[in-house]
Formats: sequence, structure tokens, C-alpha cells
Amino acid sequence: MTGVLYGVGLGPGDRELMSVKSDRLVRETRNIAYFRKKGRAGRARTIVDGMLRDDVVPFAMEYPVTTEIPLSDPRYNAALSAFYTDCTTHLQTLVQAGEDVVVLCEGDPFFYGSFMHVYTRLKDSLPIEVIPAITGMSAAWTASGAPITWGDDILSTVMGTLDEETLTNAMTQADALVVMKIGRNLPKVRRALAAAGKAERAILVKYASMEGQEICPLAEFDAETLPYFSIIIVHGQGRRP
Amino acid sequence: MTGVLYGVGLGPGDRELMSVKSDRLVRETRNIAYFRKKGRAGRARTIVDGMLRDDVVPFAMEYPVTTEIPLSDPRYNAALSAFYTDCTTHLQTLVQAGEDVVVLCEGDPFFYGSFMHVYTRLKDSLPIEVIPAITGMSAAWTASGAPITWGDDILSTVMGTLDEETLTNAMTQADALVVMKIGRNLPKVRRALAAAGKAERAILVKYASMEGQEICPLAEFDAETLPYFSIIIVHGQGRRP
Repeated sequence: MTGVLYGVGLGPGDRELMSVKSDRLVRETRNIAYFRKKGRAGRARTIVDGMLRDDVVPFAMEYPVTTEIPLSDPRYNAALSAFYTDCTTHLQTLVQAGEDVVVLCEGDPFFYGSFMHVYTRLKDSLPIEVIPAITGMSAAWTASGAPITWGDDILSTVMGTLDEETLTNAMTQADALVVMKIGRNLPKVRRALAAAGKAERAILVKYASMEGQEICPLAEFDAETLPYFSIIIVHGQGRRP
Repeated sequence: MTGVLYGVGLGPGDRELMSVKSDRLVRETRNIAYFRKKGRAGRARTIVDGMLRDDVVPFAMEYPVTTEIPLSDPRYNAALSAFYTDCTTHLQTLVQAGEDVVVLCEGDPFFYGSFMHVYTRLKDSLPIEVIPAITGMSAAWTASGAPITWGDDILSTVMGTLDEETLTNAMTQADALVVMKIGRNLPKVRRALAAAGKAERAILVKYASMEGQEICPLAEFDAETLPYFSIIIVHGQGRRP
């Protein structure tokens, strides 16, 4: 009897924003797995504090690299690929031995994120169920106190890691924007927003739905870098009866 | 003592995908309000069947028009504007009399949808709390069995109601796509996808997470129109270690 691998979206951070289904799976499971940086508790693991069975068996999957090697270096891809294969082997062994395993995923498992690299390696050999979740961007626009899109607005989600020209073009064409993965790319993101004529409407949301949530116009924020859980949004201005 | 107006996102349709918080608010509230077409039960109301208090007081807000008058006709906007003002007056009276009211919202309240028109009319005069939710598009890409975005993919969400040139441009620039509000615009959406070189990768998801869910390549679907709860997605193909 094979078990099931669950990719369980936990949502943006506030535990009450987890779905009823994810909440149930997290509380019932004996095996959890989660990604984390070396030396950290892991954000996904922290979200479920106090929800787990007493006899839970954790499997922490520690990224071998994050920002020490640039994305463009082939060693980055090689290190991550070997890491995902290792994680996969362990999860596969558990599930083939008949265990159900819950992989804890921040946000929505199929919207960026790490789980998908495990998923694609295992989808043809194991039963896998993916539970969608509220995205960090939904939490950000909700926190901003204004709807992100109206009528026929085009919403584009872009990563701050893109080159400046690509960013500028995408920002120019969209009516509403979500910018993620900003970090040290903040000066470039600011220039692209300005070139697209959207800098003045940009709102910065830090730690949406989490402890320490902060919201301010980007123009009033003067640092050069942002923490990982930061999202910049630009609200659409479409049709509104 | 004023009450609170809650804009409660119910998610894509599967009741277990409602957040723990929305689930709790729906079960506890004495007053619910929801939008519906004339003569229909209302999709949002149907999602919460069996969850409501015995003494619940419903307020059905029936759209005066949907597709009978074209969007471009000024009478469309005038009719809807008067309708939202009427709804607002009733909700405001209830909340000012000390009642809490839960407005049931399909999907996420700040991502397209009708609640935002009530919200903007009342946000400066009443306490309002908005609960985000899993979007229909998250349910659609989860149902498709493949992640929507990888690495630095640009995701654009576009409405089938846009003109063909705008659609084509947006579809060309994005790596991953979500197309909503398709209906009778399907032939135009197909032409734009083809012009953007994305027709072959387009996947049609009907009734994501609901009874009757269906998924197929768009190319294998030969009708001229689609039911309202249909989403077309094109998966990104970004970096994957």
C-alpha cells in the first residue's frame, strides 16, 4: 500500500487564513517535510507551531545555497538540482513504504515556491495531491485596504530579479502590478516603476498578514533593500460603477 | 455601538478550500448578504449551504442587469451604480444599528468581483474587515496538475472582454497567463492566443474545484462560448533546477 504525498499550501502566514483542508491535513499527519535555510526554524514550519501531532516525524529540507552563488553561475543550478533529488529520494521512500507525507508550503504550492521542484520529479511515480492556498499577494492587497483589480484591468506579477528593461516593459503594459523577490533589487525596481509611470502609486507591504505587517507608499520608504517577505503593489484603476 | 461589515472571501467553490477564518465567520453570523442574478440561488449562497445559523437573516442583492445591456452603453453603468448605492444603504443601516454583516464573496473579495463596489462606498463610514481567499485561478492551475510559474516567469491575468490587440500584446509579453471573463469572447481569445504563439499550450479549466470540474487542452475544445466559471491558463516555462 503506497501512501500519498500532499503539497499543502499554508497561505500567507496568518494561521486563520489556512484553508479548512490544509488545517485538517496538518493536524492529522504523522510525517511533515518542509524547506528551510540552514540555521533557521523555517517559515513554513513556524506557521504550524502548536498544530502538530505529538508523535510527528519532521523532515527538514535545508537549501544548500541561497544567495552565496549567483543565479547565473552553473554551480547554483547544479547544487539545487542535487538537493531536490536528495529530498525527492527520501520522500519517495517514505510514501512507497505506505506513509502519507505532508509537505508544508508557504503561500500556494503551484505559484513560484520550492515544492514544485519535488512535484515534477515525483508526479509520475507517486500519488500526489496539491492543496491551493491564499497567496502572499492576496494578503498584500487585502492589507493595502484597496482592491487590486477592477473591470478589465490587466494584472501582472513580476519578479524583481528580472532585468530592468523587461521589468519596465511589463510594468508599462499592466494596469495593476505585483512585484515580488525584491530584496537587493529594490533600486532597479524603483527605476523601472518610475520609467513605467507607476512609482507614485506603488505601495510597499512588508510581512503581509504576519506579525510585523507594515504598509507605506514606496516613495516614503528610503532603504536600498527589503526583507524577503515584501511585496510592492500598484492598484488598477479600471471601470467602477 | 456600530457593528462590523465583513467582506468574506469564500474561495473557488470547494467548501474545504475556504479559510478557517471565513468558515468561522460564516457559521457565526446572523446577517448574510450576497450578490446573485435574478431567479438564481446565487453561487456564493450555494457554497455556504448547510453552514448557516437557523436564525440567519439573508439579504440577496440582485443585479439589475448582466448581459442585456452592453458594457459600453451608459445605461449599464447608471443601472449598476444605482444598484450598488441601494445595497450600500441597506448594509449601512444594519451595521449602524449594531449588527455585524457578512457579505459572501466568491473567490477573493479584492480581486475583481462585486464586493469592492460596496466597499469603496462604505470604507470611510463603517468598520469593514476583508478576508482574502483562494482565487479561482489558483484552483484552476492546481487542477491542471502543473505549476503556473517558475523562477522569474511573468504572470499576467487578462479578461476576455478586452479588445483583440490589447489581449494579443499582453499575451505576447507574459510567460504565464490566466484568462478570465471569456464567455462569448472565446473566438477572440483564441485568435489572440494564436497571435501570441501560446494557443498550443493553452489549457481550459471549467468549474475549477467545483462539481463538474473539467480540464482539457483548449485546442481540443471546439465550442464558440464558455460558461462563466471557465478559466484558460498557459503555464510558464521558467528556470527549474
